[in-house]
Amino acid sequence: MSDTTSHPDPRINVDVVSDALLGKWKKERLESRALAADPRLHTINGQSMDEHRARVLEQLGILVENGAIQRAYPSDLGGSDNHGGNIAAFQELVLADPSLQIKSGVQWGLFGAAILHLGTRPHHERWLPDVMSLKLPGAFAMTEIGHGSDVASVGTTATYDPDTEEFEIHTPFAGAWKEFLGNAALHGQAAVVFAQLITRDVNHGVHAFFVPIRTPEGDLLPGVGSQDDGVKGGLNGIDNGRLHFTHVRIPRTNLLNRYGDVAPDGTYSSSIESPGRRFFTMIGTLVQGRVSLDGSAVRAMEAALAIALRYGSERRQFPGASGRDTVLLDYGQHQRRLIPRLAQTYAMAFADERLLTVFDEVFSGVGDTDENREDLETLAAAFKPLSTWAALDTLQEAREACGGAGFIAENRLVGLRADLDIYVTFEGDNNVLLQLVGKRLLTDYAKQFAGGDKAALAKAAASQLGDRVSRFGLRQMGQSIADLGQVARSVESMRSPESQRALLTDRVETMVSEIALALREATKHVPKGDATARAIANEDAFNAQQHKLIEAARAHAELLQWEAFTDALAQITDPGSRQVLTWLRDLFGLGLIERNAAWYLVQGRISGQRAQAVTAYVDRLIGRLRGHALDLVDAFGLSPETLRATIATGIEAERQEEAHAYVEAQKAAGTWPIHEKELRKRAQQEKQRVAG
Amino acid sequence: MSDTTSHPDPRINVDVVSDALLGKWKKERLESRALAADPRLHTINGQSMDEHRARVLEQLGILVENGAIQRAYPSDLGGSDNHGGNIAAFQELVLADPSLQIKSGVQWGLFGAAILHLGTRPHHERWLPDVMSLKLPGAFAMTEIGHGSDVASVGTTATYDPDTEEFEIHTPFAGAWKEFLGNAALHGQAAVVFAQLITRDVNHGVHAFFVPIRTPEGDLLPGVGSQDDGVKGGLNGIDNGRLHFTHVRIPRTNLLNRYGDVAPDGTYSSSIESPGRRFFTMIGTLVQGRVSLDGSAVRAMEAALAIALRYGSERRQFPGASGRDTVLLDYGQHQRRLIPRLAQTYAMAFADERLLTVFDEVFSGVGDTDENREDLETLAAAFKPLSTWAALDTLQEAREACGGAGFIAENRLVGLRADLDIYVTFEGDNNVLLQLVGKRLLTDYAKQFAGGDKAALAKAAASQLGDRVSRFGLRQMGQSIADLGQVARSVESMRSPESQRALLTDRVETMVSEIALALREATKHVPKGDATARAIANEDAFNAQQHKLIEAARAHAELLQWEAFTDALAQITDPGSRQVLTWLRDLFGLGLIERNAAWYLVQGRISGQRAQAVTAYVDRLIGRLRGHALDLVDAFGLSPETLRATIATGIEAERQEEAHAYVEAQKAAGTWPIHEKELRKRAQQEKQRVAG
Repeated sequence: MSDTTSHPDPRINVDVVSDALLGKWKKERLESRALAADPRLHTINGQSMDEHRARVLEQLGILVENGAIQRAYPSDLGGSDNHGGNIAAFQELVLADPSLQIKSGVQWGLFGAAILHLGTRPHHERWLPDVMSLKLPGAFAMTEIGHGSDVASVGTTATYDPDTEEFEIHTPFAGAWKEFLGNAALHGQAAVVFAQLITRDVNHGVHAFFVPIRTPEGDLLPGVGSQDDGVKGGLNGIDNGRLHFTHVRIPRTNLLNRYGDVAPDGTYSSSIESPGRRFFTMIGTLVQGRVSLDGSAVRAMEAALAIALRYGSERRQFPGASGRDTVLLDYGQHQRRLIPRLAQTYAMAFADERLLTVFDEVFSGVGDTDENREDLETLAAAFKPLSTWAALDTLQEAREACGGAGFIAENRLVGLRADLDIYVTFEGDNNVLLQLVGKRLLTDYAKQFAGGDKAALAKAAASQLGDRVSRFGLRQMGQSIADLGQVARSVESMRSPESQRALLTDRVETMVSEIALALREATKHVPKGDATARAIANEDAFNAQQHKLIEAARAHAELLQWEAFTDALAQITDPGSRQVLTWLRDLFGLGLIERNAAWYLVQGRISGQRAQAVTAYVDRLIGRLRGHALDLVDAFGLSPETLRATIATGIEAERQEEAHAYVEAQKAAGTWPIHEKELRKRAQQEKQRVAG
Repeated sequence: MSDTTSHPDPRINVDVVSDALLGKWKKERLESRALAADPRLHTINGQSMDEHRARVLEQLGILVENGAIQRAYPSDLGGSDNHGGNIAAFQELVLADPSLQIKSGVQWGLFGAAILHLGTRPHHERWLPDVMSLKLPGAFAMTEIGHGSDVASVGTTATYDPDTEEFEIHTPFAGAWKEFLGNAALHGQAAVVFAQLITRDVNHGVHAFFVPIRTPEGDLLPGVGSQDDGVKGGLNGIDNGRLHFTHVRIPRTNLLNRYGDVAPDGTYSSSIESPGRRFFTMIGTLVQGRVSLDGSAVRAMEAALAIALRYGSERRQFPGASGRDTVLLDYGQHQRRLIPRLAQTYAMAFADERLLTVFDEVFSGVGDTDENREDLETLAAAFKPLSTWAALDTLQEAREACGGAGFIAENRLVGLRADLDIYVTFEGDNNVLLQLVGKRLLTDYAKQFAGGDKAALAKAAASQLGDRVSRFGLRQMGQSIADLGQVARSVESMRSPESQRALLTDRVETMVSEIALALREATKHVPKGDATARAIANEDAFNAQQHKLIEAARAHAELLQWEAFTDALAQITDPGSRQVLTWLRDLFGLGLIERNAAWYLVQGRISGQRAQAVTAYVDRLIGRLRGHALDLVDAFGLSPETLRATIATGIEAERQEEAHAYVEAQKAAGTWPIHEKELRKRAQQEKQRVAG
């Protein structure tokens, strides 16, 4: 096998690339990484659930002491109004212990953040200091057993009683019990409970209420019940559980009343007239959970690849033509398994930085417009599913690429995978989120034809002409399919960013327009007057398109990731870094086209020959990047204290060298036994010599 | 949404299909399932590693008492020489606790089986009774830290000393330490150690030796060292660990000498002349591990789908046009996620039955020919990777489809996934096994042209003509590509089994011939005399084709699975069962074609239009099978005691009914508060009425 381990030219400048990855909140990230290197914050493998829960509670105290969780809170209450920096720092904690990370997320990113964003100044002053100091641990009681993703339909009620000026919190059936809540089983003393606000016999929809649930000594308050969710597939340092409420009374002022209030006499008022918009505004303040998970997933992928690529660069298996056993990463299949995932990780890292930037603009108030909030929600709903799924996929491939060693807990891969499993369904189920993105794409598409008729729509679908709708919504190529054919005609040009962008954009655009047309067609023959029949026809049609819509949303998210990578690349001036990252970006872009080759072929966007050329070029890029793999994971900047995987410490290279030296010494001393195979070969040769 | 929950016509006869799935070893399977229902054999979630290990050791004793592990051993030693039945029964144990299953596999399927198959009568008499009774727990010491899949290169040596008539077992460097061995950390009193047999200064290759390692009290014997692997990603009921040996001496007669022996004076002898063939014969006796894992993976998939499909049939989310919340399994995306995996599970179940049949023929002696052994190894190497990967994929999709409930340990999905993770890299790393299959395909391909020249090869590759080589090796269509075009011309005909078979076969055949040609091309320009240059060129060429070869092996395995499903279908006479299973088989076959559509399009085997028609038909099949999903999982015959998942007990339907009844009662009593949205709508209408 040709020697590919020597350092190739050009090379990346690790510091330059590392800075690009650290992004705007470099300072906060590095502070958080330094803290995450503290052994007191690390997982102890094999701890019992009870021990782990107790340890994580202590760890939260260490975060408080180190000023690690205050950043997003108001300056005058001890915070620093730093929203982007807060999330950036939070993301880094995943490599200390995901249980610690998520329990801190429950306390300060959900429970505390709900008081901050849904409550008003008196609530902040009354509760936030104790929330920040951990004197008041709390649960975020939104999800119910019977209503996971469908928050608008929760069964818990908060009924106002003007006589006592109290709300009565009540879970009328088992399906309304609040479920999977961190801090609910043991440590929570209060909960922000989401319930249907009922006053004067009118249900004003879901609102949030501050409800005390336990005494500081840990005894449940009257009417409050709790069940422990027990052992989970991961995150066992968190005391997830259920809460149920039987006519529990709380003062009127415990309603977190930023977006809706009830006067002492029971009169409801809100600054947002539409109940629908009010609901989505309230829910929208909680987008930071998704933003947090996106970057955390990227960090876990980086760790997985840092471990697997280092091990794969040292580990040898099966004798090669060179005389020594072959290094794993020199195998074509091993490269195919890991290097495209490295390209994807870079794309997702740059995409997360973009998401965080929009998040910070909105939450800092610099760019808090309706459009930006909508963009932020769409972007978070697009990126979080892809990155959390990619994290599981990458951790698993890394684990398998490390063989049995990958299965040992001290090498970290299995623990991270187990903990991150739930990231794909919490803070918004990934499929539900992608459907949300898909609906946004359909809305953007329809906006282009507001007032237009079906003929215009059909014509547009055919010509693919249109304007870019918003920063992160549906975008369209400024060219027709015929032009696209031109761009992508030669294999050469497929490598250009312009043609990658055109092909990726075209796929989203075409899928969305096809879905839009199919949905319009569905009700064509149903009488306009028959609302029920139309509703059913619409629902059936949407359902038939659901899978495709989710695929379109995925394609849209991939395009945005590709654009984020391309934009980040444009900022890099160091020539070596730029060259290598360009290959990596091309691998990401062409990898997407290769994966969806069937679609491009069916649509006549590329020829069979060109599809084969894409695969051949992907293979060449992978081979070319093999020699840069270690530099590219070094640029992640994950210290040994952050990785803490025995097999990523160089131990395997030591073992291989020891074995090699032993054999060489034996051979030199003439004590290396000859193999029977060799003996037989020599005897055969001797026989031939004698016969000849 | 149209009502798809009512039972459609035709329906399967659950008993008929259940019998087809239970197959030849129904009796043994049912016995084993009954035993696996015993609570003493069940996992206790959250047990510490130490407690779990102790419990699993006790559980092995229960298996012995119940005659559950003796089947494969000789009748005169208390067994019943029932090889197929033994594996069938073993496979069922995965649903009791995979730790229990695999620890019993270590003791009786590896340690004991090595003594049985590699040892001779005196070894059997001396050790097997104690192995069977568990008086003598043992480890199977094959894998080394430095040599995982490459057993031929292990570093451990067994050097014969004629003066004392002993072998000296030695691990000369850390890479030669035996690693990941069940029973090594705690319970093993002996180990079958695989080491290079050296006598009279000649290395005769890897042989197996019986080496005592601990006293019955648990103390390590002199020269033997052990390290505990500690916490793992799963299977924590097994005491995996490392063993190392420093000049440990064992009697000459501890060599398991069925295939190679050393006389007192140090003379080596073997019934198999070629050291290579001898090695593969010895290793081949251990194929039962792979066969066992294949069926175990299928059982886990069945459990995953039984849980997720039952829950998905009861769980409701988001209001539908019908007025009630929609049942998850009525969503298009939910169906797309689960129903194709149900088809795959059926295919893999029937494929495993076929594998087990060949295994039984070989091991019972009924068909113990070289060709059958080779077929068995290829078949096991083809099926085990696909089923173990599919198990992880299916368990994960099921977990996500159950949302947060899927993450709770008591619902089983996460535990099974964690335990089965290692199945994809142990008993042969999946990628290495598929490469083995790929090489077999290349060999079969070359056999057709033995003595032929390149021109013949090229011609053959172009014409695709040839004979079927062996039962499970490379097969070829008896028709040319032109004919195939004919078969698959109309969408209608794509649904016929003939065209599915032709398309699946064609893909394997074409890929293999392309790879064979590429490999031949590689050395074309290298001088015949330059052996080193040719070796390097060969290696580079093979490496460049490695990914494709593994994909070809996967395609071959899928074809064999499809054939197994089709053959099983032919045995079913009940019309309803036959019809529904035909749809399921078509979904499996067309699903494969859909997944590989890019290949078929690039190769010109199907048109873009036909590719779209495949997707449309797959969608229709999924919709049609939705109403049969519960019947199809009922046919798995997994009792509540076997599944033991709370969410698969009907509890969700109860909760949904309770909630529904509560709301209906409130509405009937007039105490259901009107929603602000409805109020606003009415006010709007009133305004219009007044205005109008």
